[in-house]
Amino acid sequence: MYVDLTVVPVAAPDDAPVDRVFGRRVLAVIGKTEGNGGVNDFSRALATRAWTEGLSEPALTVMSGGTEGVLSPHVTVVSEGSTSGNGRLAAGFAQTPRLSVEGLGRREQVDAVAAATLEACRNGGFDPRNAHMVLVKCPLLTTEQIVSARGGAVTDDPYLSMARSRAASSLGVALACGEIGGVEADQGLAGDPSVWSAVASASAGIELDRCLVLAFGSRLDPGGQLNAETVVMHDAIDVEEIVALRDRIRAAGGTIVQVFAKAEASPDGRIRGLRHTMLTDTDLSSTRHARAAVGGLLAGVFGRTSIYVSGGAENQGPPGGGPVTVVWQEPTGGGETRR
Amino acid sequence: MYVDLTVVPVAAPDDAPVDRVFGRRVLAVIGKTEGNGGVNDFSRALATRAWTEGLSEPALTVMSGGTEGVLSPHVTVVSEGSTSGNGRLAAGFAQTPRLSVEGLGRREQVDAVAAATLEACRNGGFDPRNAHMVLVKCPLLTTEQIVSARGGAVTDDPYLSMARSRAASSLGVALACGEIGGVEADQGLAGDPSVWSAVASASAGIELDRCLVLAFGSRLDPGGQLNAETVVMHDAIDVEEIVALRDRIRAAGGTIVQVFAKAEASPDGRIRGLRHTMLTDTDLSSTRHARAAVGGLLAGVFGRTSIYVSGGAENQGPPGGGPVTVVWQEPTGGGETRR
Amino acid sequence: MYVDLTVVPVAAPDDAPVDRVFGRRVLAVIGKTEGNGGVNDFSRALATRAWTEGLSEPALTVMSGGTEGVLSPHVTVVSEGSTSGNGRLAAGFAQTPRLSVEGLGRREQVDAVAAATLEACRNGGFDPRNAHMVLVKCPLLTTEQIVSARGGAVTDDPYLSMARSRAASSLGVALACGEIGGVEADQGLAGDPSVWSAVASASAGIELDRCLVLAFGSRLDPGGQLNAETVVMHDAIDVEEIVALRDRIRAAGGTIVQVFAKAEASPDGRIRGLRHTMLTDTDLSSTRHARAAVGGLLAGVFGRTSIYVSGGAENQGPPGGGPVTVVWQEPTGGGETRR
Amino acid sequence: MYVDLTVVPVAAPDDAPVDRVFGRRVLAVIGKTEGNGGVNDFSRALATRAWTEGLSEPALTVMSGGTEGVLSPHVTVVSEGSTSGNGRLAAGFAQTPRLSVEGLGRREQVDAVAAATLEACRNGGFDPRNAHMVLVKCPLLTTEQIVSARGGAVTDDPYLSMARSRAASSLGVALACGEIGGVEADQGLAGDPSVWSAVASASAGIELDRCLVLAFGSRLDPGGQLNAETVVMHDAIDVEEIVALRDRIRAAGGTIVQVFAKAEASPDGRIRGLRHTMLTDTDLSSTRHARAAVGGLLAGVFGRTSIYVSGGAENQGPPGGGPVTVVWQEPTGGGETRR
Repeated sequence: MYVDLTVVPVAAPDDAPVDRVFGRRVLAVIGKTEGNGGVNDFSRALATRAWTEGLSEPALTVMSGGTEGVLSPHVTVVSEGSTSGNGRLAAGFAQTPRLSVEGLGRREQVDAVAAATLEACRNGGFDPRNAHMVLVKCPLLTTEQIVSARGGAVTDDPYLSMARSRAASSLGVALACGEIGGVEADQGLAGDPSVWSAVASASAGIELDRCLVLAFGSRLDPGGQLNAETVVMHDAIDVEEIVALRDRIRAAGGTIVQVFAKAEASPDGRIRGLRHTMLTDTDLSSTRHARAAVGGLLAGVFGRTSIYVSGGAENQGPPGGGPVTVVWQEPTGGGETRR
Repeated sequence: MYVDLTVVPVAAPDDAPVDRVFGRRVLAVIGKTEGNGGVNDFSRALATRAWTEGLSEPALTVMSGGTEGVLSPHVTVVSEGSTSGNGRLAAGFAQTPRLSVEGLGRREQVDAVAAATLEACRNGGFDPRNAHMVLVKCPLLTTEQIVSARGGAVTDDPYLSMARSRAASSLGVALACGEIGGVEADQGLAGDPSVWSAVASASAGIELDRCLVLAFGSRLDPGGQLNAETVVMHDAIDVEEIVALRDRIRAAGGTIVQVFAKAEASPDGRIRGLRHTMLTDTDLSSTRHARAAVGGLLAGVFGRTSIYVSGGAENQGPPGGGPVTVVWQEPTGGGETRR
Repeated sequence: MYVDLTVVPVAAPDDAPVDRVFGRRVLAVIGKTEGNGGVNDFSRALATRAWTEGLSEPALTVMSGGTEGVLSPHVTVVSEGSTSGNGRLAAGFAQTPRLSVEGLGRREQVDAVAAATLEACRNGGFDPRNAHMVLVKCPLLTTEQIVSARGGAVTDDPYLSMARSRAASSLGVALACGEIGGVEADQGLAGDPSVWSAVASASAGIELDRCLVLAFGSRLDPGGQLNAETVVMHDAIDVEEIVALRDRIRAAGGTIVQVFAKAEASPDGRIRGLRHTMLTDTDLSSTRHARAAVGGLLAGVFGRTSIYVSGGAENQGPPGGGPVTVVWQEPTGGGETRR
Repeated sequence: MYVDLTVVPVAAPDDAPVDRVFGRRVLAVIGKTEGNGGVNDFSRALATRAWTEGLSEPALTVMSGGTEGVLSPHVTVVSEGSTSGNGRLAAGFAQTPRLSVEGLGRREQVDAVAAATLEACRNGGFDPRNAHMVLVKCPLLTTEQIVSARGGAVTDDPYLSMARSRAASSLGVALACGEIGGVEADQGLAGDPSVWSAVASASAGIELDRCLVLAFGSRLDPGGQLNAETVVMHDAIDVEEIVALRDRIRAAGGTIVQVFAKAEASPDGRIRGLRHTMLTDTDLSSTRHARAAVGGLLAGVFGRTSIYVSGGAENQGPPGGGPVTVVWQEPTGGGETRR
């Protein structure tokens, strides 16, 4: 299904200005909320509740916590698009069954997400190899679940379970999109950061018990209003290819509608040979550091702060880097930024 | 005096690799240390102690806390430069008398810093109107000092005293460099953010009882190895003029040696009309947010992370923005980046 | 009206086990939620939403953020009590009109809260001089409101506005309960910490635009199941009088149902002559420090962690201390702790 | 050797008032500094540097970070005691060889600490079974060390390495003092929290590459001025036995000189059946929560805030609890608290 995107600023996590999307069939709401993005980030649940209650029909809500630095809280509403343009951007949705506590962060989750990704691409009408961004919202483990598993959980630290869950989800996407095979998936689960997907974007939250998959991709046949392209940042300051894409879009008369990025602290503690301090800061989680820095960079490049930067890029792009998907409107198109 | 700059990465706050500057007469050490940049940031005192003990002769040490996001802990060693090049960058130093507790953040501090700035420019051999960056390291008020003042201190909150001290220092620089007059200085003290200096860069620390002023500027007569230029960011994502300066330097065959920037959260809570959350985050001070974001942006633009980004830009550049000074080496020059 | 209290543990901010209070007429829900207790604590709004939606009839919801240290998230449900016991504890409710942005933290708020407190005591059927605890939930100022007031707000810092709002509310309670007069109220507003109420307990939240007042007190005529007594901690470790009260209740065969306390960092930076570091910690707000410490102390004294400790005790008890109200059930009574 | 203890308040991490201990032979300085107690707590290194430079002869410096809540930064100076009293408290010191990166948190560290503990008790002149408190200061792993070990380190997270190092140190103490055998030590390393020492008190810091062991114990022969007794808290609010000890000491005319405690968040997320939120707080590490809460409780019980509460009690007392050692002066004795 071709889709349109509408970027809607919000005044608080429970601000759901649904009138902004009046008259459209809403498929999904992808939000950045202003919590800490960690285990106890309740801004996500609050926003999910507000949008779910506000929309007249069921829609997927993916709320990612953390608008550090210049980032502005907002939601991107994904709605059914027109069928009369030259754009190729489409989207499809699917979800996994409920995950077991023991299966989180393990092959059970990888395979479940892979199956859901294939289904989502099929629903969207595009080949998984033409996926641009596959958003996965996945569960974490609470202290209670960890205790109930009696040592069977993948980790005994709730905060670390977020990383494990994002990793397994991303490996599932990579498997489905043909980026890796099963052997590499197991290597990735074992902690090999060189196994990664260029299209996965996973975030973990306390309010879920299964994985929700929203896949964006390009259909072969034109018809919609929007297009998308994904580039990979190879470290957290690798901006040249992004600048080049921006300039190409502008030169062709296009209008950038939204930017989706993943950010993380490079696990070896260095960027281009120099030490960073994101991993040794006991006051501030590295995901907050990384979102702030990459958010500042991309906001400067694109001249706006209501962009989607999600932290924790385990197996999503190379170690310390991450994929960036830019969505733009064709010169005579329909996607729009309101308010 | 013409100066050279050497950027030295450090492994910890108490890592002072003084052998890197062997054979140079060191005037100052300007460091970014990895603490929180707030009242209880002891990385500054630790670094000051290590460098002071390590250097063979007295030098000014200005340690600014906070390397959030991609920023890398480092020091910029300012040493006596050659006198045989075409560069014009020079520096001079001065300090104020000890400030009274009641005078901090008030006109006493403004006037003392203005006098010291004039003296520093004179020592550097350049006109105050040609100053590029005037670094001021200034005191803050501790809880004990605030109590001892019995209501006479400018604020009763130690953290806020850092902001007041930076503001008064910056207004003093502006007064000395002819950017404002006395009336505007008083307006600035009263909280008017539209009164600002384009060259001041102030940071506050618990380890001082007076203000230290290190002024950089351009001499009329060429002779050194380095040049500098200051541009102003009008908000925290205002990067176009900086990119243009970078491209001009590169086109002319120059090599960028160091970048000095100030960053702050815009006090009206908005950037280009959209809400940011830096001022309403009780977990994380806005200066940490701002350093991370602006640091990410500038690191991306310049392709390196050992740059100087100092938080808290009260009256240093327009509200929410701040001055950025770029120092570069002439095509056949002597400043260098080691390690 | 005589009241019963039921302490209900919760599994998350949006866990509202309303079946625990089935069959009772609920007057109020007083919760401790697990956010940071600061400006961006969305656990309060989430819990308010969950309980409001869960209860079959309207009830006052007072959610106070912050369960640092050993404290356990819970709600205390206040319901209509029996009329056949020997207890005297009663409660009444009232609210102020909407506060203006300029009036917050000023005499407008003091007088409005005083009037509401008088009304609440009257509704509860007891003399204001016999009040035990007067809970006030009051607004804070957002960055947007501060900007809209163009300098007219009592402070330009959202976090500080919480303190100003708590102070004004507490002074209003003190005025109504005959603890102070109007002159002292103005001194308190001007920052004099020696002006305080022994019964006020105020907390500020982003989700309100007026003050809600729930007053507890002792009626002259016995009839209910519960009794209460308030003692004042003179500093954050002043526990002897509380231990004595506990021992008296136990000796008389009573059962302690709930404990309500206020905690704050002593503003002079010292406790019994020795320095504390709560006010100079840029990583962690002093209210979190204080709740954790006083919560640990009271949990140890009473042997349970589901007690109510609210931070920010401006003008609520002496500087650095705060009032503690202990509610107990008579030997043959009806208040109970469930789950 | 019999020892005396002198508790010295400090004004900052680099405040080392060595005149307070003039004329005594100083064996050790045990400090609580005001950092976050985590990886990037530089207050420890700063204090170590200040005391090392200030003392006229070499002494062991054990600096433990974190004075959350009401706790007051201070040092306890351990000096050579008199030999003419009735007290039995003695102390001895030893250290391990440098630990390998791979050996940290593993059996290598356990055995090295066990050997050093035996040596320290022998140096102190008491049987290891009569040890009261064995302080171990141990290393952590930095990101650089973890990377250099290429997967061989016990964990790839610097913050978690602190916990692993404390656990291995504590198991080594338990082994030496006859509390456990080698099989239990391995179980403890594998994560079994039911294997613990009642006398170990370990803290980890970035400034070390080996373990330092300072053992306190009771000699069979009286001669000094001080005595000590250790009780175990079985959870973080288990205070009754401590209150009883305090009352016994007071009744016998003794004066309490210092209290040493360990604190941690119970790993199952519950205290007496009710949920705590220390482990799911992404903003604030659980060690800071635990120190604040237990510090508040003990400060209330003993009526003073300059007590030693160290966080992270892995295998030091039962899960969620920890040992508490109380040192007191005999009715006619010499240990004292100055300033």
